[in-house]
Amino acid sequence: MLAGRRVEDLPTPAFTVDLDVVKRNTQEMAERFRALGVNLRPHMKTHKSLEGGDLMTGGTRRRIVISTLAEARFFADGGFDDILYAYPLPFDKVEECATLAERLESFHVLVDSAEALALLKGRPLHRGKRWKVWLKIDCENKRAGVRHTDPAALELAQAIAAGPMELAGVYAHCGNSYHCQGVPEIQSVAQTTTEMVLQFMEKLREEGIPCPVASIGSTPSCSRPVPEMAKLQEVHPGNYIFYDVQQMTIGSCQLTDIAVRVLTRVIGHYPHRNQMLVDCGWTGLSLHSLGQLPTGYALVEGHPNLKLVGMSQEHGRVEAVTGKLDLAQFPLGSLLSLIPYHACATAAMHPVYYVHIKGQVVATWKPVKGW
Amino acid sequence: MLAGRRVEDLPTPAFTVDLDVVKRNTQEMAERFRALGVNLRPHMKTHKSLEGGDLMTGGTRRRIVISTLAEARFFADGGFDDILYAYPLPFDKVEECATLAERLESFHVLVDSAEALALLKGRPLHRGKRWKVWLKIDCENKRAGVRHTDPAALELAQAIAAGPMELAGVYAHCGNSYHCQGVPEIQSVAQTTTEMVLQFMEKLREEGIPCPVASIGSTPSCSRPVPEMAKLQEVHPGNYIFYDVQQMTIGSCQLTDIAVRVLTRVIGHYPHRNQMLVDCGWTGLSLHSLGQLPTGYALVEGHPNLKLVGMSQEHGRVEAVTGKLDLAQFPLGSLLSLIPYHACATAAMHPVYYVHIKGQVVATWKPVKGW
Repeated sequence: MLAGRRVEDLPTPAFTVDLDVVKRNTQEMAERFRALGVNLRPHMKTHKSLEGGDLMTGGTRRRIVISTLAEARFFADGGFDDILYAYPLPFDKVEECATLAERLESFHVLVDSAEALALLKGRPLHRGKRWKVWLKIDCENKRAGVRHTDPAALELAQAIAAGPMELAGVYAHCGNSYHCQGVPEIQSVAQTTTEMVLQFMEKLREEGIPCPVASIGSTPSCSRPVPEMAKLQEVHPGNYIFYDVQQMTIGSCQLTDIAVRVLTRVIGHYPHRNQMLVDCGWTGLSLHSLGQLPTGYALVEGHPNLKLVGMSQEHGRVEAVTGKLDLAQFPLGSLLSLIPYHACATAAMHPVYYVHIKGQVVATWKPVKGW
Repeated sequence: MLAGRRVEDLPTPAFTVDLDVVKRNTQEMAERFRALGVNLRPHMKTHKSLEGGDLMTGGTRRRIVISTLAEARFFADGGFDDILYAYPLPFDKVEECATLAERLESFHVLVDSAEALALLKGRPLHRGKRWKVWLKIDCENKRAGVRHTDPAALELAQAIAAGPMELAGVYAHCGNSYHCQGVPEIQSVAQTTTEMVLQFMEKLREEGIPCPVASIGSTPSCSRPVPEMAKLQEVHPGNYIFYDVQQMTIGSCQLTDIAVRVLTRVIGHYPHRNQMLVDCGWTGLSLHSLGQLPTGYALVEGHPNLKLVGMSQEHGRVEAVTGKLDLAQFPLGSLLSLIPYHACATAAMHPVYYVHIKGQVVATWKPVKGW
């Protein structure tokens, strides 16, 4: 346990979380949707920690989204409930979903096919429970979901609502917001996705299919919401607890909103090739960004002229963006702070997060891994 | 514990290891260098497991390489010894290295700078021990190491050998073999690196600097060795325990030598965009290959016309390489077997490996994580 230490004294590479920034990010998101009268159902996939879940739910430990059963078990064991497994029902995991649904007050599953629904019908719940089933619709995101305009979507909603399960909600992920640049583009996706979902809800009403909740998600759309989103019942963003360079580039946040860093130390000087090595490779950062930032695989805090040009398993190669690298500025052993491109991916590489307030470590969080 | 199950029945995504193939890979590498009269000091970084270490050392649990102190502690706690920490000495970890050097019969460190050597001099070992220090030289690999032709290399060797530490060896990683295509290119790198190291050893002899061991590594060069390598004392490959598509592409191995797979299931059919989803995203495979294989991010075993075109955290998108995807061939819930591009990177994403013999799970291995 390294609580009490300064982050500068942590062994590197170290994944650090600025608690003040996390609190601000989570409170602002909560307030944003409280003001709109929309419930927030935060996604746990970015941090996968009980402590992060506490902050995102304002301490209620209720109403969350997860995307693996390892997360479901972990949060259930940690006292969380009202858990939505927002993932196309995997056919090998129906029995475990049933166990969770029977054990928790509220464990929701999601389907986008008649085959998945048939599996749920084939495994009725005990203990007086019935399946709470969400319909995943695809609103131009092109990943999972029945297309919102496809008659099959309405048919599937009808089939769910016909029982013995209940249609608990309609779920859309506006992952296409990740291709945006700037707030107007994000808001355009948010507006379009919201309208598509609301149109679908209207069709449900016309058909007399009861469905209490429409939910959309993605950190960009929920960080820059449009007024129309007030007509939804829920939103389900996740990344905003940490934010990252990707979100900043999209326009979801400012640099000062990014709560996480990978601390790394200089381990070698190679002036003949104008390069130095640091002790963070892809095991500490991931390969996300694919090196395509002007500064390579990350931003180096306070050093806009440094570029992380490549990584092997435990080594990172740092060059100057332009000109000669001034090695005297970075003695062997000195610390650099990398701002990750994709916080979800970087967090996934670390078995422990060092949580600090103004640079003083106050806690360590241990995320769940695996499936 | 899922021992006894068939791999087809494992929850997905699952990282599987074919024990017969691992045994063959490790035995062949051991025999190859026994025949050459060269000691094998296998690198643990790919699998990071006690069981893998057992197989790579032929059960001796002696003479290994590691690249993080988490691995050092893990293998030391597991009864391994004669451990070389083949990583430019990190300045924040000298005290922990000292503890390991005092605790183990033989814990070796590596330096490529006078500054690192000065740190070791400033922390003499207790218990009658002295530092075993390896000199890292760079033979055109352009990562860590003093260039083999740089007078500084000889000076640093001299300074190490002057005591109170001992110069335990000279270490070169021919990582440039990873840019090869085909056995002749690999053997050219192996030949050149060996000659450079041997020339450097000759210079040491001329200067009267005692140094018992010259070691080179990389799975390509050690899988396709040249006769000159018989003049070395050690080699230190690592990836060969598993091999992967990258190694096959380089020419280090055949497809049948690749011991690992990621099993994944079909979770969605999207005929309108000629695509299906599988339950393996970058958390199960990593982004290595950057999608640049003709089949995307992996090979799909037995299905050369399938292409893993993209991944998000828990979803993989699969298309046909050419033509229309025949979804009837891949019902929802059916299993696909992904052959990873980079086994080290894929293994790093998994908290447990499912080890099987002819498809029957016989053990689970738990790798060490972190630093």
